[in-house]
Amino acid sequence: MSERLVVIGGDAAGMSAASQARRLKGPGELEIVAFERGHFTSFSACGIPYWVGGEVPERDQLIARTPEEHRARDIDLRMRTEVVRIDVDGQAVLARDLASGDEYWTTYDKLVIATGARPIRPTLPGIDAPGVHGVQTLDDGQALLDTLGSTKGRRAVVVGAGYIGVEMAEALTHRGYEVTVVNRGAEPMSTLDPDMGRLVHDAMTGMGIGMASNAEVTKVLTDDDGRVRAVATDSGEYPADVVVLGIGVRPETGLAREAGLPLGEHGGLLTDLAMRVRGHDNIWAGGDCVEVLDLVSGRERHIALGTHANKHGQVIGSGVGGGYGTFPGVVGTAVSKVCDLEIARTGLREKDAKAAGLQYVTATIQSTNSAGYYPGAALMTVKMLAERRSGRLLGVQIVGREGSAKRVDIAAVALTAGMTVDQVVSLDLGYAPPFSPVWDPVLVAARKAVTAVRKAG
Amino acid sequence: MSERLVVIGGDAAGMSAASQARRLKGPGELEIVAFERGHFTSFSACGIPYWVGGEVPERDQLIARTPEEHRARDIDLRMRTEVVRIDVDGQAVLARDLASGDEYWTTYDKLVIATGARPIRPTLPGIDAPGVHGVQTLDDGQALLDTLGSTKGRRAVVVGAGYIGVEMAEALTHRGYEVTVVNRGAEPMSTLDPDMGRLVHDAMTGMGIGMASNAEVTKVLTDDDGRVRAVATDSGEYPADVVVLGIGVRPETGLAREAGLPLGEHGGLLTDLAMRVRGHDNIWAGGDCVEVLDLVSGRERHIALGTHANKHGQVIGSGVGGGYGTFPGVVGTAVSKVCDLEIARTGLREKDAKAAGLQYVTATIQSTNSAGYYPGAALMTVKMLAERRSGRLLGVQIVGREGSAKRVDIAAVALTAGMTVDQVVSLDLGYAPPFSPVWDPVLVAARKAVTAVRKAG
Repeated sequence: MSERLVVIGGDAAGMSAASQARRLKGPGELEIVAFERGHFTSFSACGIPYWVGGEVPERDQLIARTPEEHRARDIDLRMRTEVVRIDVDGQAVLARDLASGDEYWTTYDKLVIATGARPIRPTLPGIDAPGVHGVQTLDDGQALLDTLGSTKGRRAVVVGAGYIGVEMAEALTHRGYEVTVVNRGAEPMSTLDPDMGRLVHDAMTGMGIGMASNAEVTKVLTDDDGRVRAVATDSGEYPADVVVLGIGVRPETGLAREAGLPLGEHGGLLTDLAMRVRGHDNIWAGGDCVEVLDLVSGRERHIALGTHANKHGQVIGSGVGGGYGTFPGVVGTAVSKVCDLEIARTGLREKDAKAAGLQYVTATIQSTNSAGYYPGAALMTVKMLAERRSGRLLGVQIVGREGSAKRVDIAAVALTAGMTVDQVVSLDLGYAPPFSPVWDPVLVAARKAVTAVRKAG
Repeated sequence: MSERLVVIGGDAAGMSAASQARRLKGPGELEIVAFERGHFTSFSACGIPYWVGGEVPERDQLIARTPEEHRARDIDLRMRTEVVRIDVDGQAVLARDLASGDEYWTTYDKLVIATGARPIRPTLPGIDAPGVHGVQTLDDGQALLDTLGSTKGRRAVVVGAGYIGVEMAEALTHRGYEVTVVNRGAEPMSTLDPDMGRLVHDAMTGMGIGMASNAEVTKVLTDDDGRVRAVATDSGEYPADVVVLGIGVRPETGLAREAGLPLGEHGGLLTDLAMRVRGHDNIWAGGDCVEVLDLVSGRERHIALGTHANKHGQVIGSGVGGGYGTFPGVVGTAVSKVCDLEIARTGLREKDAKAAGLQYVTATIQSTNSAGYYPGAALMTVKMLAERRSGRLLGVQIVGREGSAKRVDIAAVALTAGMTVDQVVSLDLGYAPPFSPVWDPVLVAARKAVTAVRKAG
């Protein structure tokens, strides 16, 4: 007897789950119905800044798999169809065809919730004016590109200085815009400690990007025809021909909340390690709408990142298809770049460690991505946190030029393994002059952290 | 009462040990006498190919610390002085001043042996002819540069296709030479499995470098004035205006052997984890003259690499100075490049696994260093070995373009932690389109390895 799987959300987590389930079970065993309210499936939201910036010329390059490709694998994919209710007891979802407005119920044996995240959009005067853009979906990206194509002026304001903000600052700089980043905090990249964020600030200023810090946006000012003309903050006005909102995202879990499913303190769905929604054996959730276990702090976090969503989908698809897999958690690794500056972090920041009740020491060093004598040796700063007494590695942050960011992977693996900074010092990392100084920068930081642990007693 | 530390060898391991010991104990507590038979201290032999190739313009850039700098730290450094005998029972070394020929005994309380490695130089007719060069020391490098400066012809033969061989092939290509690499094996880079070595072969051929494989050098042919004119092999002759020998190195342990100190099956000194020579509480050894524990196979190996030598020196200096440190072992990580091709390995090759009695599966995948849609996304091939049944990661080899080599560090840390390929799949690695596909190539290989482990049963 055939079962029916219903998938809500046609992006990374949902369609990875559907595809993996289909690999394990054929259409005779498992019917798969997937609902997507947008125009696209399986696209790389992370790639939008590079499409807007012009490095990726075509929108379709960001689409890993089209609706037609999914359908060719016997997935009954219903585009522009939004699920508006989940009836957990009745094992059914209510879907609305966005074109016709028609609504209909579909029953399920197994349900996957992959509703993603929605961008934070403050309710401010003028926020919906023409020329103000989010960059969450391909439609958003196209709308922004249309604005850039039709705008004469060359002044852009980016609201928010996290990953999306700095990447959009790069994209608009590439497009020839004079960019100002308006940031509520004192430093950009609040995913870093402020001392490391300061390095990003200085580098961005050096690239000619205006940095308006400690600035809370109060309204978007418009001209006579209603189009954006400036962004007003509590500390000044910034003229703008285009405004990009990159403030961050929240889990899109209204549907789940109404259905009575368990949400965590960050608003994301709570699952077990097999990505089943807690208390519900036949409902899975993954991607940007769930909270994940932080293996370093032992607490749940919300991290919207395609790489996690893909892994979730893989695990969910295995579970739905009768296989087995788990997602053990994250250590909070993230990398980004703004022009030639690379930014990376993993594990805990100082404030995370404090919040988790951990006592720690820090060590910050400067080194280079290759042997100092090798041409083009580029500077990087590495900050490391280690637990007091135990010396356990707690986190690493890196800001530097080419060759800096992916070094954070060394720390990501070491964190996962629960290594001490002493153990990190002894790691056998790849060494040759074009690739590293004889002591890799991560090892140099670890050596300093070892000393700091010893001194702290 | 002051103790005397004698150090034999003034390069990375010896002088790192001396410096670290000095940091811990002042001249009133510890007298340090160091002997170096060459003209230089603390230099980067790994940097010689880049000096020869012209990327590093000045020899002195390769010198981390000069004799004068060491002396300024109260190290009694005796240059051009070779230790010719160690009297273990009498706790003394016999040193010879190479200029005068004078010999004298110096007693020690503690001894550090850091005699390094010597290049393999086959005893063949013509091998000492002008125009034939090794590249082990700065003097070697200078002699080669002198030859390059005075040679009209532009044909070079490199004997050996390991790290030194391929790096010298790049260097001579940069210098405008037509390069042929003569290799005893079927594929270059015998530190890789042959299937991965084949990728290096093809790439080097594509760069216009001649690859003479399965070719055993039988003699060096000279012209009327005794200068090199060609390299003869059992399968043909290769005209050469200059010949570089890059066949590899062996531990320089004649002195230790004569002193009755314990050597391993690769000819290197055997130490404990604190780098003390086994059975001798007051003798340490480190750098290219020792064997190290391979943490994956559980067996001793000989690896001549500056990064290990520096770590050994650090550990030894701590021990000598009354501190504490250990060198737990290696996983066999190495990275290299030849022009824009990057080559990396860590852990065991297939033949290493077989020799260690391990049953394994392999998985080889192709991926890119950045998101496939990101401009300049460069191909890389990743091969992974995992133990049968347990799924424990055993080794990784990578051949690819920019951004490939240092990814091996992910595997190096995972090997050190004893992770399974299942655990590797779940690693939280840095993801953003400029830095990685949504599944990092190492994770893609791990996914395939997981399947291979399951199938092998």
